[in-house]
Amino acid sequence: MVFDFKENDEQQLVVRSVTEWCEKNLTAERVREMDDKGHPFPKDIVEGLGNLGYVLGTVPVEHDGPGIDWLTQGLIAEVIGYFDPTAATAAALMAVETGWGFTLDRHCSETVRDRYVKPAMKGEKFLGIATTEPGGGSDVSAFSSSAEKDGEEWVINGEKTFTSGTEECKRWGGGYWINVRTGPPPPGAPHRNMTAFFLPIDADGVEVQKPYRDAGRMAISTGGFIMNDVRLPDEYRLGEEGRGFYYTMEGFDNARIMIAASCVGVIQRILDIATPYIKEREVFGRPLAKYEAIQFELAEIYLEMEALKLMTRKTCWMQDIRYQEEGMPTKTARATTFSPTQIAKWISMIKWKGPSLALDAAKKAMLWFGAAGYTKDYLLEAAWRGVMSYVVGAEGGKNIQKLVVARELLGKEYIPYK
Amino acid sequence: MVFDFKENDEQQLVVRSVTEWCEKNLTAERVREMDDKGHPFPKDIVEGLGNLGYVLGTVPVEHDGPGIDWLTQGLIAEVIGYFDPTAATAAALMAVETGWGFTLDRHCSETVRDRYVKPAMKGEKFLGIATTEPGGGSDVSAFSSSAEKDGEEWVINGEKTFTSGTEECKRWGGGYWINVRTGPPPPGAPHRNMTAFFLPIDADGVEVQKPYRDAGRMAISTGGFIMNDVRLPDEYRLGEEGRGFYYTMEGFDNARIMIAASCVGVIQRILDIATPYIKEREVFGRPLAKYEAIQFELAEIYLEMEALKLMTRKTCWMQDIRYQEEGMPTKTARATTFSPTQIAKWISMIKWKGPSLALDAAKKAMLWFGAAGYTKDYLLEAAWRGVMSYVVGAEGGKNIQKLVVARELLGKEYIPYK
Amino acid sequence: MVFDFKENDEQQLVVRSVTEWCEKNLTAERVREMDDKGHPFPKDIVEGLGNLGYVLGTVPVEHDGPGIDWLTQGLIAEVIGYFDPTAATAAALMAVETGWGFTLDRHCSETVRDRYVKPAMKGEKFLGIATTEPGGGSDVSAFSSSAEKDGEEWVINGEKTFTSGTEECKRWGGGYWINVRTGPPPPGAPHRNMTAFFLPIDADGVEVQKPYRDAGRMAISTGGFIMNDVRLPDEYRLGEEGRGFYYTMEGFDNARIMIAASCVGVIQRILDIATPYIKEREVFGRPLAKYEAIQFELAEIYLEMEALKLMTRKTCWMQDIRYQEEGMPTKTARATTFSPTQIAKWISMIKWKGPSLALDAAKKAMLWFGAAGYTKDYLLEAAWRGVMSYVVGAEGGKNIQKLVVARELLGKEYIPYK
Amino acid sequence: MVFDFKENDEQQLVVRSVTEWCEKNLTAERVREMDDKGHPFPKDIVEGLGNLGYVLGTVPVEHDGPGIDWLTQGLIAEVIGYFDPTAATAAALMAVETGWGFTLDRHCSETVRDRYVKPAMKGEKFLGIATTEPGGGSDVSAFSSSAEKDGEEWVINGEKTFTSGTEECKRWGGGYWINVRTGPPPPGAPHRNMTAFFLPIDADGVEVQKPYRDAGRMAISTGGFIMNDVRLPDEYRLGEEGRGFYYTMEGFDNARIMIAASCVGVIQRILDIATPYIKEREVFGRPLAKYEAIQFELAEIYLEMEALKLMTRKTCWMQDIRYQEEGMPTKTARATTFSPTQIAKWISMIKWKGPSLALDAAKKAMLWFGAAGYTKDYLLEAAWRGVMSYVVGAEGGKNIQKLVVARELLGKEYIPYK
Repeated sequence: MVFDFKENDEQQLVVRSVTEWCEKNLTAERVREMDDKGHPFPKDIVEGLGNLGYVLGTVPVEHDGPGIDWLTQGLIAEVIGYFDPTAATAAALMAVETGWGFTLDRHCSETVRDRYVKPAMKGEKFLGIATTEPGGGSDVSAFSSSAEKDGEEWVINGEKTFTSGTEECKRWGGGYWINVRTGPPPPGAPHRNMTAFFLPIDADGVEVQKPYRDAGRMAISTGGFIMNDVRLPDEYRLGEEGRGFYYTMEGFDNARIMIAASCVGVIQRILDIATPYIKEREVFGRPLAKYEAIQFELAEIYLEMEALKLMTRKTCWMQDIRYQEEGMPTKTARATTFSPTQIAKWISMIKWKGPSLALDAAKKAMLWFGAAGYTKDYLLEAAWRGVMSYVVGAEGGKNIQKLVVARELLGKEYIPYK
Repeated sequence: MVFDFKENDEQQLVVRSVTEWCEKNLTAERVREMDDKGHPFPKDIVEGLGNLGYVLGTVPVEHDGPGIDWLTQGLIAEVIGYFDPTAATAAALMAVETGWGFTLDRHCSETVRDRYVKPAMKGEKFLGIATTEPGGGSDVSAFSSSAEKDGEEWVINGEKTFTSGTEECKRWGGGYWINVRTGPPPPGAPHRNMTAFFLPIDADGVEVQKPYRDAGRMAISTGGFIMNDVRLPDEYRLGEEGRGFYYTMEGFDNARIMIAASCVGVIQRILDIATPYIKEREVFGRPLAKYEAIQFELAEIYLEMEALKLMTRKTCWMQDIRYQEEGMPTKTARATTFSPTQIAKWISMIKWKGPSLALDAAKKAMLWFGAAGYTKDYLLEAAWRGVMSYVVGAEGGKNIQKLVVARELLGKEYIPYK
Repeated sequence: MVFDFKENDEQQLVVRSVTEWCEKNLTAERVREMDDKGHPFPKDIVEGLGNLGYVLGTVPVEHDGPGIDWLTQGLIAEVIGYFDPTAATAAALMAVETGWGFTLDRHCSETVRDRYVKPAMKGEKFLGIATTEPGGGSDVSAFSSSAEKDGEEWVINGEKTFTSGTEECKRWGGGYWINVRTGPPPPGAPHRNMTAFFLPIDADGVEVQKPYRDAGRMAISTGGFIMNDVRLPDEYRLGEEGRGFYYTMEGFDNARIMIAASCVGVIQRILDIATPYIKEREVFGRPLAKYEAIQFELAEIYLEMEALKLMTRKTCWMQDIRYQEEGMPTKTARATTFSPTQIAKWISMIKWKGPSLALDAAKKAMLWFGAAGYTKDYLLEAAWRGVMSYVVGAEGGKNIQKLVVARELLGKEYIPYK
Repeated sequence: MVFDFKENDEQQLVVRSVTEWCEKNLTAERVREMDDKGHPFPKDIVEGLGNLGYVLGTVPVEHDGPGIDWLTQGLIAEVIGYFDPTAATAAALMAVETGWGFTLDRHCSETVRDRYVKPAMKGEKFLGIATTEPGGGSDVSAFSSSAEKDGEEWVINGEKTFTSGTEECKRWGGGYWINVRTGPPPPGAPHRNMTAFFLPIDADGVEVQKPYRDAGRMAISTGGFIMNDVRLPDEYRLGEEGRGFYYTMEGFDNARIMIAASCVGVIQRILDIATPYIKEREVFGRPLAKYEAIQFELAEIYLEMEALKLMTRKTCWMQDIRYQEEGMPTKTARATTFSPTQIAKWISMIKWKGPSLALDAAKKAMLWFGAAGYTKDYLLEAAWRGVMSYVVGAEGGKNIQKLVVARELLGKEYIPYK
């Protein structure tokens, strides 16, 4: 039998270890406090998890990283999502720092790696992603930030918005993966002639904007910044010139996997909060759990959580095969078993299903609790507000994911709006 | 032709007048500020609307009330819901004050009317409802608050929770409709031997608890209070002894109608916020409104809002017929055209459909806006958080409404849990 | 009070009368037999209902028609849908014959009226609609049938498909409303330069094709025909030359109203079949009706049926106002209260909601019955198969309706595919 | 890495082989003909597949069976569902014959094995399941069929209904797994004191009833039979006396796995029928596949099919582990890795999700096709009618599955109706 659906011993060990850490350091009280107080994200948590090797865990050992695989990193993200169901910790440390940090490490120079990636692995500095521009989220063609070569340096101008962690980055140090135009887009190919860079937040000419006030996921800031004649040496360029779009897509892939995995954890947590409550709480002389309408909803959420879990793990497994085939730490070949677009299809499926499902689970559980579910006495409302950030769009909204899946199923020539 | 689906001239006049007032006094900026600042509810708004006769508008002229019908009051609630889509104003002034205030007026003594109902009509005092107890929301049998006759007075003990407006009531003066046990429940009939009273908030022995911290609808407080040997004269009794449950159900009916009507307004507002945005905002070179997935959702929300509007107006029309037939200001006969349980079926249908629909509309609109929809730059997120209070349970959760509808369709003997 | 939601005495009389007729002539056994045997549709039913004035009931008295309004005709369609929940009778006699027959009467010459409309009112001849062509259903631009003037006559060539009642028309005599090209379409306006005609089925050059084998709605045939140099005198032209598209849209409007109204009846019938069954049938020692999951579904179907009913009646009321304002029997003015596109929005909403809801109701009821619901022992499976014909597309599929609603809400410039 | 989501070489070989056979023998034309003609099921198909070892494939080699695992048998069921999307072949040969045949083989005497199981493996005789009685489907307590010991024989009386394959069984020979009462049920434990038997269809006293007329899945009959003093020797008893309920549950488990697996195939087939059609068919000048509403539905169906596939394969994998641990061909130990109730939870999840999803996929695809989707020109309508049989209840309706899942999540004490 080839099929196997079980964690191996090493994976189980990692899960136990990160669970124990979270039981101590990411308690319900702590999470409530983080949500109430709002950003900046608590430094001790990123450092604690970073020192255990769970932040940027997939950075290869050759680069002094923990070198775990995506399957194991996905299991870690499940646990993080479980303990902080507001999604703030998972968003900050798994999607942003791990998803993008790994991708940064894969494409950056030794200098950037030493100065930024390695400290970020220990939770000392913040690594983020800043693609969105005021003109558009998922629409690269609306991007107008640009970099021009001036001698050995690049001069960067433009604005980035809806960027996670700007306040944290300012305080801790660190910087952002940006993707900017380094040449005019060929007709009909707005994604060409873009180049990725690493932008230190404290570079001259970077002006961080006031953070947004959001509906949830309060423990991590969202803001933006303006780049005004920012000068970067060429070693801050990521990968080849003109291929920034493709590297950025790779970063999105890794970040989205982390989001889906953390949603598995969020849903499991919602079930674990709700189950004892509905078993105890009596209405009309019987526990809520004995009401068919409630227990059927519980069963539905559980079913779909298991579906999501399997799909997410399969996606991690595909991504691991991809990176093994491409070569690590440096890409030396092309993936053969699954093409990147095949994997992207799976990634879009889980990024689409995960947050929607978590939102729905939180909403339903709030209803079971009645008025109590609407109060901050339980984490349900914070989970509900928090995962909504993933549904509305963080790392690509729902409709974008559907377009990706449909494109893979039908072919590029059936993209609706061309 | 008998069927007619149009507002008459007088109704149109009222709608125009309340709209104009709200355009000046309940602007988007004001609503945002109210949501940010949180309770207590601004006094100028309740007084402004009260002085125009729109709060407790259905109190009959014989009792110095505005004497409008429920259809017109429903139109007012639509407008209020429109201008404050966080549902706070509608919850406070329409569901609680108007729905319960009218019912209070119908069953209270001249003393209570003069001291509390009349000032409340001007927005001077607060009138609320406090039925829920720690043991249960919709489950009367779990209630343990009680009143005992001691000479000419009643001595009341117990606790009420999840009560709207406790902070406002404390500040402005006023009090609560309560429903307490005045005799042991006969076997299998926990709703018997309960009596309704009006409880002034400043009565000796009332101890107001710290308000809850909620996920939304911030401008109105939710709290609770303990009643410790509170002594009330008999003229604070509402209606006949032992029939408190039935009067309370009547109050719920009127409050729920107001909720449904205000949801019509909330949804219309969401559409009015979203429509210009999706027409302007371009992604991939075309406005969001040209994306089929988005415009189909818009069309679906609109369709269901029109359905809700018709159902709500029909329900108001039924309730008006009921009160005409029962006699006003004093009940002198029984309704013949529609029985109270028939009307309750319709009320449960709109209380169930309205909030769910409004929540869904807010969620979908947030998705169209992407990350921007998640910020406090638009009222969408406040609407989303606010109407959730109605969905989780204010004035009776979704499943309770379903049970009511099913009971009417199938008969009492098919209540599932007996 | 202007709002009124009640049938008047005359309408109640009509409902009682058609109900009594159906109780005798459209029994469950008869409907089962009609579905089993398949087309042609039984002549006695069309004649019986025709002689009572219920088929083409809205044809004005000036044209020797019954002259009832659309509201009353809608009530008749509800009853027909109730008694034949397979939708065959409603499709044949209400949507096709009444919806299109009325529109035909409004635009045809005295000759066509005498030869075809008047006999059809008595159930003697069949009147139908044949717009769809092999190239497309809702897409007029794909139509290639054409008429050319040759002296006093028109010579018609082309093919029509998915046409209701071809076998009935062949047997009973009668004919079809067709819409064909009488000039090249101006660029970007494929709906211009089309002209409507009445095509007698026995005209030389008409070749009726073999009927389709469908999944349901068996009692009425669906087929097609080829027109091969068919010559028609000019008095078979309907309305003005070049305006056939607009008249055809008017016909769709009237047919769709009938479909929505009949769906109200179908759903009511499904509830009436299911309710006694679930009350009696015991599983695990309690009637199915006591299971929350089942009774909540029942309540949901009922709620939405009432919503559909109100929306359908409002639409009929709007259409009646339209025709009153336009003038009857001959159009002499334009509607002022509601524009045709405003009414079309409502018509699309009910055509979209009605069949989907009926299909869902049938499906759910089948589930409550378990394996018994899957058999021909009950009409549920026939209703399920039958109403699906409306969902897939008869008189315009679901997505077309959504596009219409969205176009009205957003404006023509936001049609997605232009 | 332990996780693995890929078929091994042997499994791929089996899939290829059964696919090739079906491409020749279970063509779309053949399936259409089978559905049109109705039962009895064609003998050549059961014999063809039987001779290849794909019917009752999991019967162990020690019993002269093919001895494949459930994972591989699940892959076969996927292929069968793909080629006959009306579900008739999968229902007959996979769910009924394989699911129940394997379980029969596991618990029957050598005599029954030689006379019935071995011929059934070759497609010579029919093996079925007959549990349902007129009093109830999933409710064992309503069963009144009984067996009484009379010397060396059992005398059986009672009636079984909604039994698959009665006509086939009559023609081909074979018989049914029945489960009857052999003692009074202890209070509150109606499932005790039942014993399973194998009933040859030609036993004296068995009277086969007229088959039902169903909405779909026409190629296999559904009927019932009366047992009138049927005498069976003790070697027709299955397993221990009084434990029939438990063996029957095991049979349901295996049958349900086959149903879920075949639904994966049905959905894949629907996508494969629909995809080229929507790519080619143009409406308003663009292929249907370019319409967002359509391609998003396609993507959703695909996503959920992949979820179902993973869940089904995981369930097979669990079942294989169970049987390995229990011992084969004879049970010698208890499963340790997964308890039977844990596996039952997964089985109920896939039995619930699979048919619902397939029904929804068929419905949506019919809508994309419009009127053409409603005709017998495509297999979509036959798939839609066919899979409905699984949704309404074959092998346990949807609500039963939900109850099972909820019971596992909450504990037996939370079964709603106790």
